[in-house]
Amino acid sequence: MSHTRKAAIQPTRSEDYPKWYQQVIKAADLAEHSPVRGCMIIKPWGYAIWENMQQILDKRFKETGHQNAYFPLFIPLSYLQKEAKHIEGFAKECAVVTHHRLVKNQEGILTPDGKLEEPLIVRPTSEMIIAQMFAKWIKSYRDLPLLINQWANVVRWEMRTRLFLRTAEFLWQEGHTAHATQEEALEEVLKMLDIYVDFTTRCLGIPVITGEKTARERFPGAINTLTFEMMMQDGKALQGGTSHFLGQKFAQAADITFCDAQGKMKHPWTTSWGITTRMIGGMIMVHGDDDGLVLPPRITPLHVVILPIVHQSDTKNTLLTYCRSLKGRLSELIYHDDALKVAVDERDMRIGDKIWSWVKKGVPIRIEVGMREITDQKLSIAKRTKPVREIERRTESDLIRTLLTELDDMQNDLLKKATTFRDTHLVKIDTEKEFYSFFKSDKGFAFAHWSGDPSIEEKVGRELSVSIRCIPKTLEKKEGVCPFSGGKSAQRVIFAKSY
Amino acid sequence: MSHTRKAAIQPTRSEDYPKWYQQVIKAADLAEHSPVRGCMIIKPWGYAIWENMQQILDKRFKETGHQNAYFPLFIPLSYLQKEAKHIEGFAKECAVVTHHRLVKNQEGILTPDGKLEEPLIVRPTSEMIIAQMFAKWIKSYRDLPLLINQWANVVRWEMRTRLFLRTAEFLWQEGHTAHATQEEALEEVLKMLDIYVDFTTRCLGIPVITGEKTARERFPGAINTLTFEMMMQDGKALQGGTSHFLGQKFAQAADITFCDAQGKMKHPWTTSWGITTRMIGGMIMVHGDDDGLVLPPRITPLHVVILPIVHQSDTKNTLLTYCRSLKGRLSELIYHDDALKVAVDERDMRIGDKIWSWVKKGVPIRIEVGMREITDQKLSIAKRTKPVREIERRTESDLIRTLLTELDDMQNDLLKKATTFRDTHLVKIDTEKEFYSFFKSDKGFAFAHWSGDPSIEEKVGRELSVSIRCIPKTLEKKEGVCPFSGGKSAQRVIFAKSY
Repeated sequence: MSHTRKAAIQPTRSEDYPKWYQQVIKAADLAEHSPVRGCMIIKPWGYAIWENMQQILDKRFKETGHQNAYFPLFIPLSYLQKEAKHIEGFAKECAVVTHHRLVKNQEGILTPDGKLEEPLIVRPTSEMIIAQMFAKWIKSYRDLPLLINQWANVVRWEMRTRLFLRTAEFLWQEGHTAHATQEEALEEVLKMLDIYVDFTTRCLGIPVITGEKTARERFPGAINTLTFEMMMQDGKALQGGTSHFLGQKFAQAADITFCDAQGKMKHPWTTSWGITTRMIGGMIMVHGDDDGLVLPPRITPLHVVILPIVHQSDTKNTLLTYCRSLKGRLSELIYHDDALKVAVDERDMRIGDKIWSWVKKGVPIRIEVGMREITDQKLSIAKRTKPVREIERRTESDLIRTLLTELDDMQNDLLKKATTFRDTHLVKIDTEKEFYSFFKSDKGFAFAHWSGDPSIEEKVGRELSVSIRCIPKTLEKKEGVCPFSGGKSAQRVIFAKSY
Repeated sequence: MSHTRKAAIQPTRSEDYPKWYQQVIKAADLAEHSPVRGCMIIKPWGYAIWENMQQILDKRFKETGHQNAYFPLFIPLSYLQKEAKHIEGFAKECAVVTHHRLVKNQEGILTPDGKLEEPLIVRPTSEMIIAQMFAKWIKSYRDLPLLINQWANVVRWEMRTRLFLRTAEFLWQEGHTAHATQEEALEEVLKMLDIYVDFTTRCLGIPVITGEKTARERFPGAINTLTFEMMMQDGKALQGGTSHFLGQKFAQAADITFCDAQGKMKHPWTTSWGITTRMIGGMIMVHGDDDGLVLPPRITPLHVVILPIVHQSDTKNTLLTYCRSLKGRLSELIYHDDALKVAVDERDMRIGDKIWSWVKKGVPIRIEVGMREITDQKLSIAKRTKPVREIERRTESDLIRTLLTELDDMQNDLLKKATTFRDTHLVKIDTEKEFYSFFKSDKGFAFAHWSGDPSIEEKVGRELSVSIRCIPKTLEKKEGVCPFSGGKSAQRVIFAKSY
């Protein structure tokens, strides 16, 4: 990027990261706040990204034997009552439906009427209703494993919301499975985390740190919560998906039993796992730059945008005809099992504005076609990962020959760049003083020892807004000394501020 | 079907059609009522059918320039208030959210808390919230047409529910578009109806009658509602999708304006169109028989099921190995752009039960493989559209050579059969006496003249539970005399009982 020109996004990342994030979403036209407090509207460009995420994950879920189903939006209050008995700390901020009718009063004002005998809760998760259905469906070991997934909207009342990252209503998938043995359930929990991690790394180009949550950070009711954590460019952590081993707790709460091969009645072992539209937020924050969104080729709704540069109206038809036929030829390429997605931007708009609109939307490849390009038989090609005005002049056949590889290279480069950033900002810290100074003046994750004492989590949470993001599985596992308590530590854990 | 054996579904269609419908859903494991009143659980087999419907329609919507987006689940009461001012007869039975928290009272009972300043309505349709967003997004003629679709759940409080046909919560898509001219909007309304009709006829194998709704049956606020109506095997009508021309009414209500090419401010012309999970109910009722569900090949989640017939445990491995490799070879076939869907049922279950489970689920082709089939090198092949024990003994290569054509033939046969049924039960009626006697003792649609007087609709509705389903576009259009009033009639219309 030229150092003299103003970045397309104001403020820039270094000036004000949270505002930069909002402005990228606006500039790329991904989503906006709705008039309904806490709810967002996912606009076509943002929704197309979500559809791509869904498609890739759904395929993986089905390949691993899961089936989709759909459960009710509403949960009877009595179910939460039952859950509250068995499970500590379940979500209490939720939308409560109390009436089923609107009537006009004498002034013509609509008012709620038809009070329900039992209030209904808009699902914050479908854990309990699915467990209740499992209790009905599972009779014998032959019914196991039961591997169900649901794509749905859920609602958790939130006071402070941020587009994609935290909204009252959001979209997600929730997997719920039941198994005859603990081993199978544990295997499932790992398998689904692996699918998430593979997807996030390979398709979103985001490096992750996987591990277990501490007891304090676990999903209420879970025996163990596996997570993967991503580092944003402000050094904060974003939790990606989680995969929970629920043991037999939910099976007991909902009274799910099965008759094993020996005729003995048992509770199955259950799991649940989910990933949400906040992954879009993560992708924006990891790859975005001061010119807007940067989309990894594996997830973009559009790989190539062709921009006809119309200077005179008499050349318009020639240009449009050429651009459309170029689109046809490029669309024949197959990129990771699907046709390459190519569009011609025929909007009647100044070319500069047109270029910037696609830069801000993060499309990987931009091809500009004016009469000069047609005469010279050379296209002007720009890549979103390069400075905006860095144009390659190449023949169409040369482009077609290497385009797919170049997209893969862009994909890999994004992952590499994010990994370098992450590694640079993952800092081993060995004293409490260093720890405090790090979180007061630096950005990144602290990789530090911890005795296992939850009061340390409570203290750094209160004083620094820092939490243990996970006890990592794949990083160095050496014993050491806890810098906070001087106690023994089994391994270093990841401390960070988080979204 | 052998006349001596008992039908798999009890009661049969002729004995009790509504109960037969419920039993088919149960036997095919498509869906069930949830513990939440009025809501259904769509089980994997039912949901897979919905996913196929979605996939086909979504592709068509995108090919015609529509983009998906997502709007909030909740609508502020004030929006409905605004709508109620402009639009007569909007839905009043809806789920009203009044609180956003649950707290435990002194007895430990969860009770609603955190009363909302303004109640929220769970969307019965997104008409008004989308119109409000359109008002924000549309500024100039360059922003038009705006072609948006949403796949979502909606809630309309219903007292009497039937799986798929009428439930409080259901899944649907709702298209919402805005256009610069009336002509364009009218074209859109027709185009989307055509997509629905093409999908229903070609993929679901269901013949339709398309036409306009009468003023009485129109969507509240619509200038014109186009519909397609399907005839069930009990002679009742099921409304499929509808496509509404909204004129400028919603644009006025939500104050959507645009600046045209001449700089003049105008209201755009809007449309909306939707299709729901009730199409699954229609498909069950049109094609199902006394042995259960019958799935058209174009929509089935599974084309071929292979059943290994294990008589002795020492041949089990040989059989399974063969069945799995057969599955591999059949899965290489491409049926209408996608790999043929084939499964081996390896469940440990009596072969008779296994066969019947797939008959009831409606899978088009069943292949039974025992040691005899392997020795003889001939497969035993059964088709869902033929009597259950009618088995063709054919070589694998013969099957592979013609399987795709045979599936298309089955698809066409289902449409033909349904069309013949529909035509047989579409009866021209010319006197009021005949009309009353038809609806008291026969089943089907009455094709009768009508003066256009709504009081006639009201009367036959009250006395016979019959309504005008549509003023057909594609059937005979001749003037005549209204049998109810003796008045002049522009053309015959479709009268029927309906779901």
